[in-house]
Amino acid sequence: MDQLTIQDIGEQGLLAKLQHFCLAGVVGDDAAVLTPEAGKVLVVTTDVLIDGVHFSEQTTTAADAGWRAVAANLSDLAAMGATPLGLTVGLGLPGCLPVTWVEQLYQGMTECLHSYQAAIVGGDVVRSPVITLAITALGKATPHQILRRSTAQPGDAIVVTGPHGASRAGLELLLHPERGTDLDDCDRQAFIRAHQRPRPRLDVLPSLFAQFEPLSEPPLPIPVAGMDSSDGLADAVCQICRTSGVGARLWQDHLPLPEALSAWVGQETAIAWSLYGGEDFELVLCLPFPMAKALVNQLGAEAAIVGEITVEPGVWLVTETGAVVQSLKLEQGFQHFEP
Amino acid sequence: MDQLTIQDIGEQGLLAKLQHFCLAGVVGDDAAVLTPEAGKVLVVTTDVLIDGVHFSEQTTTAADAGWRAVAANLSDLAAMGATPLGLTVGLGLPGCLPVTWVEQLYQGMTECLHSYQAAIVGGDVVRSPVITLAITALGKATPHQILRRSTAQPGDAIVVTGPHGASRAGLELLLHPERGTDLDDCDRQAFIRAHQRPRPRLDVLPSLFAQFEPLSEPPLPIPVAGMDSSDGLADAVCQICRTSGVGARLWQDHLPLPEALSAWVGQETAIAWSLYGGEDFELVLCLPFPMAKALVNQLGAEAAIVGEITVEPGVWLVTETGAVVQSLKLEQGFQHFEP
Repeated sequence: MDQLTIQDIGEQGLLAKLQHFCLAGVVGDDAAVLTPEAGKVLVVTTDVLIDGVHFSEQTTTAADAGWRAVAANLSDLAAMGATPLGLTVGLGLPGCLPVTWVEQLYQGMTECLHSYQAAIVGGDVVRSPVITLAITALGKATPHQILRRSTAQPGDAIVVTGPHGASRAGLELLLHPERGTDLDDCDRQAFIRAHQRPRPRLDVLPSLFAQFEPLSEPPLPIPVAGMDSSDGLADAVCQICRTSGVGARLWQDHLPLPEALSAWVGQETAIAWSLYGGEDFELVLCLPFPMAKALVNQLGAEAAIVGEITVEPGVWLVTETGAVVQSLKLEQGFQHFEP
Repeated sequence: MDQLTIQDIGEQGLLAKLQHFCLAGVVGDDAAVLTPEAGKVLVVTTDVLIDGVHFSEQTTTAADAGWRAVAANLSDLAAMGATPLGLTVGLGLPGCLPVTWVEQLYQGMTECLHSYQAAIVGGDVVRSPVITLAITALGKATPHQILRRSTAQPGDAIVVTGPHGASRAGLELLLHPERGTDLDDCDRQAFIRAHQRPRPRLDVLPSLFAQFEPLSEPPLPIPVAGMDSSDGLADAVCQICRTSGVGARLWQDHLPLPEALSAWVGQETAIAWSLYGGEDFELVLCLPFPMAKALVNQLGAEAAIVGEITVEPGVWLVTETGAVVQSLKLEQGFQHFEP
């Protein structure tokens, strides 16, 4: 029997199926209504994902594509110091797409959302020749706890909230299943899972905010700059330095690499993947050393202080003795528009 | 000289150009920050538009596509009783697209937004084989003034805030330029403009709310059901009746048709276009007769009471004498997914 496609069940049929995945009571009007708490500000972020550009059948099932899309948006909220209120999903779908594909996409999205007490609050579904997923996440934040990229100060410690390189390793294993046969099965699965089911680090925020008890009323902005490492750890440090007008030294020997990674691909590739691999969705935070140390202690073994912010411009990877290994540069624009 | 394309200037080059159209200070972080007023709730709506499905070069320039996309979202806010806070724009673009196309799109979007004191507060731009525009509009509303589809009451008057059929007439003139040669040039331009530059009726809200002075504290929800007529006047009335569990009688002779329309296409087609043409972006409101009359007086000649909500199910188009002309049905799902 042929698979049921979207054009078989039509728009109304599809919407009826998708409503089960949405917050009860929000469907059926022109828009959704949310009630922000008093004293909070609203944080908004949008991502568009295109089949064949941002995900593909080879490395990403529909459920994983849904999870990753939601995780990326929640990670953007976390990077601003915000917790999720809900999200809207705009979908463009070819009529010949199996209905099960869409259901699995929503299954993946809601699985990720459930872990963070958030829900789909609205959306739109239209016909498109290419699968397109546009997510807007809404979050709330306390004004003095908003994290920006532009406020890093010379002397700040650079904290990463977890290991880097695992997602890139997982992608390698998915693209080249013949590789990694020497890997322990647990490590292999952990790498693949890091790529398919990344976890946005919303859990870091309470620990971070706990380092800064307000001393005045109204409270001063907390002295933390940050963003997430979705485009790579090197990119995050470079972006923070550029917008803050500072430089940085990254300590090569302190980069938190996944344990099995160096053994598998060698030290040099492991470091390259941790700096440039991307999609680890950890937070990169710049804050005074005493609070940075306390934060890393609270977050546990996988978090680390990986360097310091400097007055001198430039971002340098250095050894234990201070010798420069390389200069890190903004990947000039991830020229996504090349064919 | 060849036109400059998106892949010529790359993602960073494009973002630099688009930042001029966005609210100052919101670009450069992972997300945008908005401050809702105390006591307001947040209203969110999302639309996805695909080249070749929702707009085409023949009937819509880039600037018009931008205006219409924004107008549709602001109209959804108006239909909820909300005024705009801002919107996010997610764009999927082919690399070979001329940069001027994107600039004109943003020009059209911001022109529409400026009329309503709203701004683009965030977004995402990615590569896609087909031009894709995903807009999420954020608005604020006072809780007791939120308009829903589900609260129409038998005995309510049905108000439309302006004429219907003009947008459909404009589309006809764009698709078949050889038609309408007998039309006055002013009427011709007015129809085309109604299609290309529809105006969301946010201006109606103060007049509507003024009919309901709060008598208690906290105020009771105002007795108004509503939605916009973007999918057609008949569709709006049917949707309201279905979700409210009521019926309606629409008075054929009271439908506000654009003056020149009947003379041009004849009474029957004019009525059909006003009921089913769609994209007029007026509001369809159900409220007690005394307030409905006062509202229509305030809005002026183009607004009208076009019928009444009934206990009996079904939506009927009737003549002055009460004779039934036809039964109106929900267009079964605008089967957008058929190829």
